Amino acid sequence: MNYKMIRYILGRMLGIEGVVLLIPMLVSLIYREGCWKYFLFTSILLFIIALLNGRKTPEQSHIYGKEGFVIVGFAWILWSLFGALPFTLSGSIPFYLDAVFETISGFTTTGSTILSEIEGLPYGILFWRNLTHWIGGMGVLVFVLMLTTLNDKNAMHLMRAEVPGPDKDKMIPKARENAMLLYMMYFALTVAEIILLKLGGMTLYDSIVHAFSTAGTGGFSTKNSSIAYYDSAYIDGVITIFMILFGVNFNMYFLILIRDIKSVFKNEELRVYLGIVASTIVLITVNITHMYGSVIKAFRYASFQVASVISTTGFMTADFDLWPEFSKSILLMIMLIGACGGSTGGGMKVSRIMIIAKSIKREVKQLLHPRSVNITMVNGKRVSDDSIRGLYIYVFAYSIIIVLSTIVVSLDNYDFGTTFTSVLTTLNNVGPGISKVGPTCNFSFFSPLSKIVLCMDMLVGRLEIFPFLMICSPSLWRKKF
Amino acid sequence: MNYKMIRYILGRMLGIEGVVLLIPMLVSLIYREGCWKYFLFTSILLFIIALLNGRKTPEQSHIYGKEGFVIVGFAWILWSLFGALPFTLSGSIPFYLDAVFETISGFTTTGSTILSEIEGLPYGILFWRNLTHWIGGMGVLVFVLMLTTLNDKNAMHLMRAEVPGPDKDKMIPKARENAMLLYMMYFALTVAEIILLKLGGMTLYDSIVHAFSTAGTGGFSTKNSSIAYYDSAYIDGVITIFMILFGVNFNMYFLILIRDIKSVFKNEELRVYLGIVASTIVLITVNITHMYGSVIKAFRYASFQVASVISTTGFMTADFDLWPEFSKSILLMIMLIGACGGSTGGGMKVSRIMIIAKSIKREVKQLLHPRSVNITMVNGKRVSDDSIRGLYIYVFAYSIIIVLSTIVVSLDNYDFGTTFTSVLTTLNNVGPGISKVGPTCNFSFFSPLSKIVLCMDMLVGRLEIFPFLMICSPSLWRKKF
Repeated sequence: MNYKMIRYILGRMLGIEGVVLLIPMLVSLIYREGCWKYFLFTSILLFIIALLNGRKTPEQSHIYGKEGFVIVGFAWILWSLFGALPFTLSGSIPFYLDAVFETISGFTTTGSTILSEIEGLPYGILFWRNLTHWIGGMGVLVFVLMLTTLNDKNAMHLMRAEVPGPDKDKMIPKARENAMLLYMMYFALTVAEIILLKLGGMTLYDSIVHAFSTAGTGGFSTKNSSIAYYDSAYIDGVITIFMILFGVNFNMYFLILIRDIKSVFKNEELRVYLGIVASTIVLITVNITHMYGSVIKAFRYASFQVASVISTTGFMTADFDLWPEFSKSILLMIMLIGACGGSTGGGMKVSRIMIIAKSIKREVKQLLHPRSVNITMVNGKRVSDDSIRGLYIYVFAYSIIIVLSTIVVSLDNYDFGTTFTSVLTTLNNVGPGISKVGPTCNFSFFSPLSKIVLCMDMLVGRLEIFPFLMICSPSLWRKKF
Repeated sequence: MNYKMIRYILGRMLGIEGVVLLIPMLVSLIYREGCWKYFLFTSILLFIIALLNGRKTPEQSHIYGKEGFVIVGFAWILWSLFGALPFTLSGSIPFYLDAVFETISGFTTTGSTILSEIEGLPYGILFWRNLTHWIGGMGVLVFVLMLTTLNDKNAMHLMRAEVPGPDKDKMIPKARENAMLLYMMYFALTVAEIILLKLGGMTLYDSIVHAFSTAGTGGFSTKNSSIAYYDSAYIDGVITIFMILFGVNFNMYFLILIRDIKSVFKNEELRVYLGIVASTIVLITVNITHMYGSVIKAFRYASFQVASVISTTGFMTADFDLWPEFSKSILLMIMLIGACGGSTGGGMKVSRIMIIAKSIKREVKQLLHPRSVNITMVNGKRVSDDSIRGLYIYVFAYSIIIVLSTIVVSLDNYDFGTTFTSVLTTLNNVGPGISKVGPTCNFSFFSPLSKIVLCMDMLVGRLEIFPFLMICSPSLWRKKF
């Protein structure tokens, strides 16, 4: 492990957070709020840390995938620990653990909140809260990029299944240029949403912060009742579409950019994703029509909630905890599935589910016709056995984390629905669950222990589990080579 | 597919059921009950079917693993369909679907019941109900034997993970002799339990039927309040110990028989199984002591319920649905884990969980130290990559079945705990769940659709999923070769 290099890069990354914090400080100043000084204080603190650690490049500057994961993991944690300071210093979230929960929920683009009363908070504070979603989304995109461009063959096969997008040779080969391209698309989509929301009658401030939240598939809102506050079919529609768009593999936008529309249409993951969205909307619409009196209204609420859950955003326009159990089960299922690989969304990812389904089919076939040769194909390309193995291990680790987290959270003695879905929603970076953590509720009532477990689940879910397991593995820290 | 041979064997197996049904007929006659004629009627019906189908051996008598699975699958279904007749004909369970549910629950050794009032039913009927558990347990043992002695290499690797007991060469090589040995041990343990229960003051009838239920790890009782009815620490203790014993791989008893005690102590699965039992008993005892006022009482109830759930028996002495959520979560977790491979218990099996945990560890190690060679070892022997792959696919298919079943059952609109644990408990062949399907409740309130789904889950769980997937696969029926 190249500790010096890790310290150096983390130092620089904290410096960047210092710069970013100047944005909500400006917002505070515009609205003449007193909290600008807390942003400035945190900013200065971060600059000092950056100066102490990130000034001089270490002589041995080479790092491997291993160090990369450690850096990404700690960056997420450190950004959250420092990013939580303005919340607590300003008194908006008096308890630091709650503030850390809120900030991790922001950066991991989960959107679970411990706040019950949001509307009274300063503009600057709420701007920072939603900005964490937008930055978190950027972090995810870079992280995915890092996974796809890693040279480390061993790390590769564990992660690859996640991004089965277009051929890599179609992408511009340099990582830095790729990152710039991704950011440009991310930025363009965000701006488009801001404009469309503004046209729908939202204030500029609201348009910006809600576009941030949609882009990162986060889910924080500045209103207590989330998007239901606006009660506008137009705004619902715009956000529904953008939630679906931000759940799509960003490589698709790259393909559109280079006018390779055919590859977009042929993309299996995209088709399955849209197929799941369409079919679950239909099923839920049928199931809830009697509650809303009209199919159109039911469709509006069904499509918004489906888009919100499958993209793991977590906005709401209707309290789905009041819906029939059938609709709730379907929402829990798509919560597990999540968005497409290579998007800002969380969950297991559509591509993983596809590969799993296909390999079960292959195995049964092989069993019946032992002499036949069966391979698993996704997007017309063979998925290597190594990738499949990595994927399997991913899902097991995922299941074990769900079971263990549920047991610890159950110490708080809330009903099974609350306990189980609080873990499910945080691990998949969605936001709301059912029962006591339903769309109209919040996470403030949990014990500190449960909050810590749920914070870890958010991080683990966002880091796609393996980097987390690596960080936890004693053998990473023991041996140096 | 050798259809003639399948028909022939199934015909003969139904004939055997006809013979078995004469036992509860005798019990009815002893107690001078009118229901003896329904057993006789069903018996005669089965003899006729046997005569029509199973009289002459087909010329081509060779069958492969494929046919074997089809036979086992259909045998379970047909035995249940005919075994349900006496329940409905006698009016004990008026609706045939309910009777089928009860019989499938019996033969699969699940123990979920649709009866609310058990104590008023005839002795003959209740004897038959519990006898299905005992026969189901024998069926499982033979099925496991079939899996281990199959020559079909392809079927082998999918199932192997389940029975990682002693070396096969230590077993007497002939399948028929093995089956006899297994049955002798099964019989001996059952008789031992009958004697011990009788010594505790149970009537002979009660001792026999409860021993049947324990041996098959089923869970049907002749009392409305299950074992809580007797309220005896001695009886609780005896049944606790036998539940744990019947959850152990039967190869262990074979090893004890040939005095290879060392191999028993060295067996990793057994040690992990007992370790899980011990640690969960401690955790739950601590968690519920405040409810029972004394550690000893808490220990008595905790150990009984843990043994009942992990062995997937489903007896109860305390309503664990009233326990704190922490204890309930732990019980749900061991419900998933289940007993040891090669026992009459259900669930995923301890050995599978062990292999999964070990392969995650291996994968993380490999990721950190790419040049090291890591293999997965269980009981000091290498687990082949093929076995591991089969195991993975098993767990995925398992998870997908849980999700899809939950969605269908949720159409009945009961709370999430009820819906989810009804699927979990039937698929793992346990018996009770939590909330509306808790230990003191029954399954009668579900809609016919849900009952059918839960019946399928019981069968799928019992058949270890793959034979079921094979039977469902269109390509099995399409091509003949």
